[in-house]
Amino acid sequence: SKRYSITLLPGDGIGPEVISVAKNVLILAGFLEGIEFNFQEMPMGGSALDLVGVPLPDETLLAAKKSDAVLLGAIGGYKWDKNEKHLKPETGLLQLREGLEVFANLRPATVLPQLVDASTLKKEVAEGVDVMVVRELTGGIYFGKPRGFGTNEDGEEIGFNTEVYATYEVDRIARVAFETARKRHGKLCSVDKANVLEASMFWRKRVIAVAAEYPDVELSHMYVDNAAMQLVRNPKQFDTIMTNNIFGDILSDEASMITGSIGMLPSASLGSSGPGLFEPIHGSAPDIANQDKANPLATVLSAAMLLKYGLGEENAAKRIENAVLDTLNKGFRTGDIYSAGNKLVGCKEMGEEVLKSV
Amino acid sequence: SKRYSITLLPGDGIGPEVISVAKNVLILAGFLEGIEFNFQEMPMGGSALDLVGVPLPDETLLAAKKSDAVLLGAIGGYKWDKNEKHLKPETGLLQLREGLEVFANLRPATVLPQLVDASTLKKEVAEGVDVMVVRELTGGIYFGKPRGFGTNEDGEEIGFNTEVYATYEVDRIARVAFETARKRHGKLCSVDKANVLEASMFWRKRVIAVAAEYPDVELSHMYVDNAAMQLVRNPKQFDTIMTNNIFGDILSDEASMITGSIGMLPSASLGSSGPGLFEPIHGSAPDIANQDKANPLATVLSAAMLLKYGLGEENAAKRIENAVLDTLNKGFRTGDIYSAGNKLVGCKEMGEEVLKSV
Ligand SMILES: CC(C)[C@H](C(=O)O)[C@@H](O)C(=O)O
Ligand SMILES: CC(C)[C@H](C(=O)O)[C@@H](O)C(=O)O
Repeated sequence: SKRYSITLLPGDGIGPEVISVAKNVLILAGFLEGIEFNFQEMPMGGSALDLVGVPLPDETLLAAKKSDAVLLGAIGGYKWDKNEKHLKPETGLLQLREGLEVFANLRPATVLPQLVDASTLKKEVAEGVDVMVVRELTGGIYFGKPRGFGTNEDGEEIGFNTEVYATYEVDRIARVAFETARKRHGKLCSVDKANVLEASMFWRKRVIAVAAEYPDVELSHMYVDNAAMQLVRNPKQFDTIMTNNIFGDILSDEASMITGSIGMLPSASLGSSGPGLFEPIHGSAPDIANQDKANPLATVLSAAMLLKYGLGEENAAKRIENAVLDTLNKGFRTGDIYSAGNKLVGCKEMGEEVLKSV
Repeated sequence: SKRYSITLLPGDGIGPEVISVAKNVLILAGFLEGIEFNFQEMPMGGSALDLVGVPLPDETLLAAKKSDAVLLGAIGGYKWDKNEKHLKPETGLLQLREGLEVFANLRPATVLPQLVDASTLKKEVAEGVDVMVVRELTGGIYFGKPRGFGTNEDGEEIGFNTEVYATYEVDRIARVAFETARKRHGKLCSVDKANVLEASMFWRKRVIAVAAEYPDVELSHMYVDNAAMQLVRNPKQFDTIMTNNIFGDILSDEASMITGSIGMLPSASLGSSGPGLFEPIHGSAPDIANQDKANPLATVLSAAMLLKYGLGEENAAKRIENAVLDTLNKGFRTGDIYSAGNKLVGCKEMGEEVLKSV
């Protein structure tokens, strides 16, 4: 039987609860497909800060790099919000992305028919929405140099960052985006601000160059302000969206809120080689931590993405996806997606119900 | 009687049609309040490119600077989309903002009870939304240097921009935002990405410093990705939002689309002294230009903002605002906001109906 090593990073808040559910689901889906896992749990985020004083201990990064895939719960919390930058949980996450070189962040925003009412958008606008946002994750203004604080010519204090993209960075994310679009409905919309920013003009130029390799994919371009509008006006017009790190941060969150059920949404962050990083898109929700209220399905679906994109184990992934749909069809709902007529369950019970359907 | 000089910049596409309506409304509202206007019409945008080869002729900027206020229609169109950067209509707009030093862009996003159905959001989410976005307009990544194209250490081509803010820039936009919030419901939310960007950390530090001058305004901070979500989830939680140039570009467009009626939304761009720039937030809509289909109300309401924020003529401004509401109450609708049971009218007829109620 096949054997994979998985690094689990439970993190903070509801992280440990949802990771524990996803781990059990992984074990069972793997077992049924002849796959075994070695799990290694490592500290990261606020809990690592409390334990050893840094948000991403060297041991954690090393373990992650040596494993076949990484599953992260959630990080952050009020407790560490005022920390200096290098002691913030978020900084650990950026270091992890950089350390694993996972430059491509795949974030599906899908409105399931069972949950269409959870959206704040009208039913006819929300139903059938199925967008994949491909976000560049290790470049742009998040990592660009120079950055910092200083003074300008007039002796005034300033804060500054650099938005910068090089050919290889745009080309590799474009290839992931075109490949992704090809496996979906063949439509790719590249979002930029090429009417104002040179970094975006360069981005667009490279995307157009790479497009020559994918004549079967229909490429369009949209300015970021317009994309923010179109996601509200008619999200169904989108199939696959590709964009830079900061625009992707904003648009993928907007897209996920359009589904109304961010407790359901997974993500995958992939590099050229080496392990991928898989995590729910929701945060650590410290206010409901340790109360068995969290929705574990986003993490369970992240485990499915881990199997599919990280290990190429499509069958095991399908098992999990179908189990989640079955569980929803049976009417089980955590508080965040509850609506009248369904069965309200906690995090653990939701996990047990999914296991029954795997 | 009082006399003001107004520079009219009709621009491209539907620009001339909506400006012509707004001009007539201004004349009448002024007349009824003992105000006279000298109008000077100047070329700008694509039409200036066609006429004299630049998107903002020196004469246009000079006339604008010498006047008491500037009213702009819309600029841009397919025809000039492929132009080099310095020959794009958009570049003319950026030069105009810079030339007039209008650093504060006020963009209301209001859902009128008459038009709540136009929103793609559920009625209970959309009704009562009344957000004012205060966007920094002459700094940040739009104007920051260095910018351009080059090569990195590995000899790879790059495109880059600089996001930078200095003390005086944040302080002055913060003061406008606090003053604005004070005149509204006393709540100001500053949007940034201070968990990642130094420019945002600096922004937040200065906003907090300026807040000491406004103890009566309730200040909160939100990350831009969360703000993009919260505008979809529950837009009513916001009163006044302040943010930087690029985040403001994205969020103000998202907020305006949440109303569902961007053909209704005006904007004001103000400096410390000198004339303000007033314009509808919609684009030049070349596909419906010269067909008498455009909704002139966003430009008419921009004229009201011109009177209120640009000239301090609150009474004349109120006349126009009330005339617009009356006209909607009578059921007149252009195509973009039409719904069954109302009267479909063109741009000109809508203008005539507003005139009847001024
Ligand atoms: C926590 C933060 C640094 C992070 C980001 O901005 O990338 C988050 O918002 C995300 O989208 O994963
Ligand atoms: C046309 C463009 C340069 C402009 C901007 O990005 O500021 C527009 O989107 C706006 O918001 O007024």
